[in-house]
Amino acid sequence: MSDDPLVLFMPSGKRGRFPRGTTILDAARQLGVYVESVCGGRATCGRCQIEVQEGHFAKHKISSSPDHISPVGAKEARYAEKRALPAARRLSCSATIEGDLVVDVPQDAVINAQVVRKDADTRVIERHPAVHLCYVEVEEPDMHKPLGDLDRLKTALQKDWGVGRIEADAHLLPQVQAILRQGNWTVTAALYQDADDDIARLVALWPGLKNEAYGLACDIGSTTIAMHLVSLLSGRVVTSAGASNPQIRFGEDLMSRVSYVMMNPDGREAMTRAVRQEISKLVQKVADDGGIERSDILDAVFVANPIMHHLFLGIDPTELGGAPFALAVSGAVRLRADDLKLKLNPGAHTYLLPCIAGHVGADAAAVTLSEGPHRQDEMMLIVDVGTNAEIVLGNRARVVAASSPTGPAFEGAEISSGQRAAPGAIERVRIDRETLAPRFRVIGSELWSDEPGFPGSLGQAGVTGICGSGIIEVIAEMYLAGIISEDGVVDGALAVRNPRIVAEGRTFSYVLSEAEPRITITQNDVRAIQLAKAALYAGTKLLMEKQGVETVDTIRFAGAFGSFIDPQYAMVLGLIPDCDLDRVSAVGNAAGTGARMALLNRNHRREIEETVRRIEKIETALEPRFQEHFVHAMALPNKVDPFPKLAEQMQLPPRAMAGAPADETGAARPRRRSREERAARRRRD
Amino acid sequence: MSDDPLVLFMPSGKRGRFPRGTTILDAARQLGVYVESVCGGRATCGRCQIEVQEGHFAKHKISSSPDHISPVGAKEARYAEKRALPAARRLSCSATIEGDLVVDVPQDAVINAQVVRKDADTRVIERHPAVHLCYVEVEEPDMHKPLGDLDRLKTALQKDWGVGRIEADAHLLPQVQAILRQGNWTVTAALYQDADDDIARLVALWPGLKNEAYGLACDIGSTTIAMHLVSLLSGRVVTSAGASNPQIRFGEDLMSRVSYVMMNPDGREAMTRAVRQEISKLVQKVADDGGIERSDILDAVFVANPIMHHLFLGIDPTELGGAPFALAVSGAVRLRADDLKLKLNPGAHTYLLPCIAGHVGADAAAVTLSEGPHRQDEMMLIVDVGTNAEIVLGNRARVVAASSPTGPAFEGAEISSGQRAAPGAIERVRIDRETLAPRFRVIGSELWSDEPGFPGSLGQAGVTGICGSGIIEVIAEMYLAGIISEDGVVDGALAVRNPRIVAEGRTFSYVLSEAEPRITITQNDVRAIQLAKAALYAGTKLLMEKQGVETVDTIRFAGAFGSFIDPQYAMVLGLIPDCDLDRVSAVGNAAGTGARMALLNRNHRREIEETVRRIEKIETALEPRFQEHFVHAMALPNKVDPFPKLAEQMQLPPRAMAGAPADETGAARPRRRSREERAARRRRD
Repeated sequence: MSDDPLVLFMPSGKRGRFPRGTTILDAARQLGVYVESVCGGRATCGRCQIEVQEGHFAKHKISSSPDHISPVGAKEARYAEKRALPAARRLSCSATIEGDLVVDVPQDAVINAQVVRKDADTRVIERHPAVHLCYVEVEEPDMHKPLGDLDRLKTALQKDWGVGRIEADAHLLPQVQAILRQGNWTVTAALYQDADDDIARLVALWPGLKNEAYGLACDIGSTTIAMHLVSLLSGRVVTSAGASNPQIRFGEDLMSRVSYVMMNPDGREAMTRAVRQEISKLVQKVADDGGIERSDILDAVFVANPIMHHLFLGIDPTELGGAPFALAVSGAVRLRADDLKLKLNPGAHTYLLPCIAGHVGADAAAVTLSEGPHRQDEMMLIVDVGTNAEIVLGNRARVVAASSPTGPAFEGAEISSGQRAAPGAIERVRIDRETLAPRFRVIGSELWSDEPGFPGSLGQAGVTGICGSGIIEVIAEMYLAGIISEDGVVDGALAVRNPRIVAEGRTFSYVLSEAEPRITITQNDVRAIQLAKAALYAGTKLLMEKQGVETVDTIRFAGAFGSFIDPQYAMVLGLIPDCDLDRVSAVGNAAGTGARMALLNRNHRREIEETVRRIEKIETALEPRFQEHFVHAMALPNKVDPFPKLAEQMQLPPRAMAGAPADETGAARPRRRSREERAARRRRD
Repeated sequence: MSDDPLVLFMPSGKRGRFPRGTTILDAARQLGVYVESVCGGRATCGRCQIEVQEGHFAKHKISSSPDHISPVGAKEARYAEKRALPAARRLSCSATIEGDLVVDVPQDAVINAQVVRKDADTRVIERHPAVHLCYVEVEEPDMHKPLGDLDRLKTALQKDWGVGRIEADAHLLPQVQAILRQGNWTVTAALYQDADDDIARLVALWPGLKNEAYGLACDIGSTTIAMHLVSLLSGRVVTSAGASNPQIRFGEDLMSRVSYVMMNPDGREAMTRAVRQEISKLVQKVADDGGIERSDILDAVFVANPIMHHLFLGIDPTELGGAPFALAVSGAVRLRADDLKLKLNPGAHTYLLPCIAGHVGADAAAVTLSEGPHRQDEMMLIVDVGTNAEIVLGNRARVVAASSPTGPAFEGAEISSGQRAAPGAIERVRIDRETLAPRFRVIGSELWSDEPGFPGSLGQAGVTGICGSGIIEVIAEMYLAGIISEDGVVDGALAVRNPRIVAEGRTFSYVLSEAEPRITITQNDVRAIQLAKAALYAGTKLLMEKQGVETVDTIRFAGAFGSFIDPQYAMVLGLIPDCDLDRVSAVGNAAGTGARMALLNRNHRREIEETVRRIEKIETALEPRFQEHFVHAMALPNKVDPFPKLAEQMQLPPRAMAGAPADETGAARPRRRSREERAARRRRD
């Protein structure tokens, strides 16, 4: 065994032995640990900061000490003085290994006092972006060696940065000479290298040291467009912004937009222009908010559902409007920003994640990348609820996916008092098991409706309707209180003893709020939710059958809707299969997180491309068992499937077929602490 | 040894054994013999024609017979009938090997009755273009395998054509679905793959079978722009066209154009626009003349001297105006045609050959590629005479290059009666050794001036001046007739006995033509030619010293000037070193030929890139010996160098130092048949 010191890098856990005198940066690179560096080891950019952990790490058999690293040299001291390097930090390009070390690679090297959004997703994404800044010193021209200026620049980049062939962007050719002379033969080059080939593109060039580079991660939804501005050098989200998708004026939902294209000769072009213009405005906004220039944005990742994806690319989505739902392009798309009329740096590139199928888009791929069912062994169910629900189920061995036509009921459409999640909308509901009296909470107020001061805490409009999460809760509570049966029928017999139950024609409704506008839950509302949840559950069941499993280990709710519904109520309704409630979680804007991952690490691009190729797509419409699962799933929670784990945690009403027997009160009470107090509440915008 | 039949491909000479039943096309591909095929072996494109040679080829030990190839099958018969396949021709995709064969791959498969320019350079260039047409049948969309249309197209291309990763151009994304459906799921794709990497770009797409693709080979000279339209599928030059370089209005010569840029803020942009516009007009002209659409042009190769190269690319050429003559870019440049505002197919690419040095451009690289000193063992000298003379000397082992400042004397400038090569210009001269009377020929007439009917054979303007080749001849003849001395002094003593010699101030002139305008060769004219030829010879000598040789084996004159001068007179003047006259030849527009080679075979691109990297550039201004060589080279033919091979072939005047003794007449007579009757005469345009 070698006598060389042992070095362990955290958080990656990679380790190796290196001769004394090796720089930490070189050691990291040899192990494939990504440590940013722009200046190429000149101790000027400050991007390569590390911290040495002190102590004996028994598990790793390493005694690490600051004495095991070389003392601060002149160049590093100069940087530390000029740029205020934090006390524990060292520059890994200057510090050399002199003994066993545990080295921490922090993900937050702060340069230029960037403004950092505090509420951004805090997930740390290992960086290996497609665009790198590379500072080099270029040889001056020499009549004896008449290589061109660009060619000497390439030679310097190849020598200092170990890249292979370099192709320069057309727009740089007329600028190379001036920039080299302006920088007195020192420049920072942006090299774009996405694929695993040996060719790098020289996409931007600045005189001297350029120590900033940004990227965009953008989720183009049917309703809203969300954009993050991210530092490619630190990985931080600098700022975020959102806007309505202006295509809404051409049609509220996806199919009405496809219809618009089919009916109007210029429809496709108008919608492409609209979404690109809105994205351009968002770019300007995040650039302004972040205090940067558009030209400092060098890369952009987009995710979208298939129709948004096609319209953004200028592709007619008509084929997606009917079977066989043929995508024009399903694989990842790499284009220059200029090809999409995006005014970023002239050399900026863009990347669109692959689509999984005609109804399962790049947004679902991004969610998959974010949650990583393919990276672990448990059977993970991911549900992204919208007009279509995208469902992904799998683990390391196999991943299957489907889209289920839930319709817009979960979003409050098709519900008599339904509305989008906005101030005035009821979002939480509890029903007294004895009196059948409700209490609820409304978006915009922190009080329950039975608490003192509630009316005054509302806006002028008062209670205006009920949003998706409110509908889930009220119907689940109605079931738990015995107002509706297992089959979803509002029990008209109760109308005799309780004024909350009222007849409307041949069916009955439940009065949730008596003030104007009166908010009732009608039999039709219950039916709409039953249809939606049955479609979702039937799709999930198909995937479970494909996987040959009876249960799932963990459930992730993606998207805004998933962030607001209480998993327990979703399970009472049989929207999702039985599962330990502790293993059900909302993952917020996982599509945005997936986009950020693809932006910050090109290996994640390869990962999702490879994963999507492997994902088996199930077309629910073609599956003979779908109808049967659907019919069973119309019941609450299900006609045939038991929910033993749910029954362990709460008392469910007695069931006609299977499940836990109800206790003598006939009503169930939640045993777990409700999630209603969740501190960080995000709103669907 | 295998019992499989032996197959020899001509003209490549590649051979191998293949199992009976192997198609000729497959065999060719396995040997790396390039046989075009668009339809991918479906016997519909007709591009893969071959001929079987009949007989016993003793040298190769092969008895080849049409019986050794499979009989014509149904598909091939259908093609032959429909498209009139010549009798001896077979389609190599259908014909299989059934015995020993000698197979000829003709370079002239005529499809669609193309118009072919008869006087085009007849050199056969082995084809392996950067753009290939690939016909494929694409799987229809299938809900069970929801790959996108483009992705299924890629899969088909990868499967049928053995390509690796494919990236599609942005402009095709919105078109893919319509084209696939229009072609009923059969399309022809243009794949661009220049470098030796595994990535092909999908740059164009047509429904069904597309059986035509064209490229441009263009030489951007300071004075003229020459363009060839070439079929990428047959290799033929379809048509050619030329035009004046409109930059002439900004400055006649290169340095005046650089000055214009330095003096005028918009000068660079104006010149870039001018040359690109003229090239666009030429593209339209060759497309019209060839009866094709611009959109059928998929590739374009450009060669140019460094300043034209930079201005075409939109690069400020100021740095080339002074030491160290730094090129902005010296390596080969690959751009999209769109980047250069060229309206070809939207997916067309362009390629500019590398520049050798600040004064030795991509045109010199193209000449090198065409003549191939690096491909053979003899010491080859290539001279391209213009305002600067580019000189390349070398063989397989080593190639050196230089530029020598000859000035414009060889082009008729700086000569009292000089003019460009145009009707009315004296181009051939003989002087009677006894009477010193001249006779001459004039461009536009087939008669010598002493032949009956000569005056009437001239145009209205009569004799208007003397062009470059005429100047070379008249000064060489004056030397051979004893009118000028070895040092270039017009012998005033002769004025006493001959009225052709006249005093002009303190020097003497020779009257070549007495009619108005009187054409005389002045002492200054002789000096101008001496200076120009001394510069050229001194540069050549430097290169010979670098190579350590006293003589060269072969000399190639490139460019229009080289096509008209008589090598024997060039050698009498000492413009080129001593050499067997049979080994001196004019190679016409070798730059254009080099451009065509790079257009038709991407291996030639790699070849010239590699060669240019290896070429050693000599900066004459930095060489201490240049001045000494220059002074010696002022003498006719040279102060110190003997011309033994020239002396073997003609009698030279006695020399002060070395060389063959003159015979008693004191005059030399050419022993070899003059080249003046050369059938194919090309004019500098």
